[in-house]
Parts: sequence; structure tokens; C-alpha cells
Amino acid sequence: MAANLPEGVVKLLQRPVFAHVATLMKDGSPQVTPVWIDTDGQYVYINTAEGRIKPRNMRRDGRVAISVMDTARPYQDYALIRGRVVEITTEGAWEHIDKLSRKYNGRDYPRRPGEVRLKVKIQPLKVGGPAARA
Amino acid sequence: MAANLPEGVVKLLQRPVFAHVATLMKDGSPQVTPVWIDTDGQYVYINTAEGRIKPRNMRRDGRVAISVMDTARPYQDYALIRGRVVEITTEGAWEHIDKLSRKYNGRDYPRRPGEVRLKVKIQPLKVGGPAARA
Repeated sequence: MAANLPEGVVKLLQRPVFAHVATLMKDGSPQVTPVWIDTDGQYVYINTAEGRIKPRNMRRDGRVAISVMDTARPYQDYALIRGRVVEITTEGAWEHIDKLSRKYNGRDYPRRPGEVRLKVKIQPLKVGGPAARA
Repeated sequence: MAANLPEGVVKLLQRPVFAHVATLMKDGSPQVTPVWIDTDGQYVYINTAEGRIKPRNMRRDGRVAISVMDTARPYQDYALIRGRVVEITTEGAWEHIDKLSRKYNGRDYPRRPGEVRLKVKIQPLKVGGPAARA
């Protein structure tokens, strides 16, 4: 069942805060890595690169969980999202990583020879944490 | 196979930085929540309370993953730990949450009627991220 993103979570995701995304390894064990994140108000988006563990895991099993926190107000400004990957695409992936890089670091993302970027679209299924109730 | 905690990760975990711990739900999907964390140099410890999702998940399946970051230097000071819960105990759990609370907030943890604290001991199995190479 798709979940709406509460306004407080949308606002949190629009700020340059780090998200920690859990995926599932082949043996079913969890893996977590920090990522940049944004949202269109309905889906959340992260960006990764071909060859990494994350896209391999997400293609095998699209179930993910995200913990996102603004450490300036760690006990108020955090949200927990459980969701499902609905798309992994190269289309628009460089534009997307540049947009994220400008949001987090104020400049375009550095080009590395041969790097294939992937834009990952995640459907939130369950959203919680204090930012969801703000 | 147990993994040693590199010195850079021990130092990171000794600072009041937030960790994001992934556990597995009954259906095998991941769940992530932010936690306080510390280490004795060999194991890592978190603290939770009876009745929450996290201890229920960890008792069913002890496989966990942790992403920990100092957002003051987000691209240098983060570590990724995959591990296994080796003990969940009430013994020393209040002393432990007070110690964590003093580390993060400078004061003992507030007492709530009926709350049962749990100290969780995690054996690192795989440790990565830039702090592991620092």
C-alpha cells in the first residue's frame, strides 16, 4: 500500500540531509550505506552507480528502508521510510546526480571515466518518525 | 568471521555520532532506525527498550547492519558495519543508557515508569567506509 509523504518529511528531504538506505544482500542479511536523497513529494529518489552493491541488491529484492536525520535537531528532525524500488534507470541519472551534488555541495558532480550513474525511484510504503508527525 | 574494528572506526564511535541500525522484519524486509552507539574496541553496543520493533527483530534474526557518520565531515568520517547480535540483556542496561545519554546529551537518561531497557552487544563481521581506512 503506497504511503503519502507527510509535509514534514518532504521538507526534511528537501534539505541537504543524509539518508541511510538499507538493502538486502543475497543471503537476506541487511546492508546500509549513506546517500544523498530528494523527493518530488510522492516518490523518493537516490542515485548510485553501476557495479556497486546497492543496485545489485535492489534489483534482486526491491525492499528498502531509509533513515534520514537532520543532526542539527536529531530528536525532532528524523524520519523512517520503508519502501520499494520501482525504477532503476540511467535516464536522467547524470542530471539527477548533478542536482543532488548542487544541493549538498553547491557544484556539479565530478565526472569519472566509465562511470554509469543510476537514478533510483522508491515508492514509500510506510513512513514514521517525528518529522512525519510535525 | 569476526572483524576487528579499525582504530579510525573506534575513534568515530567514541564521539557522539548517530548510528543507523538496520534489522530484519518478520517478512525479511529491512527496517532502519537511528540509535546511540558505543564500543569497547571489540564489540559495538546499542541500547533499546522492550516492546519496540528492533529487539523483536534482533531476537528473530541477529543479522544487523550499521551506518555511522559524523556529519561535520560526512565524506571522511563514516563507517559501515555488518554484524551479528550476540547478546540482548537487561543486565547493566540502565547504566549503559545513562552512559550513552551523558555522552550524547550530557545528562542521565530520563526514567519512564515501566520501561525495560535492553543493552545489545553486536559482533562486527565486516567493517568498511573511509573511517575504517583512516
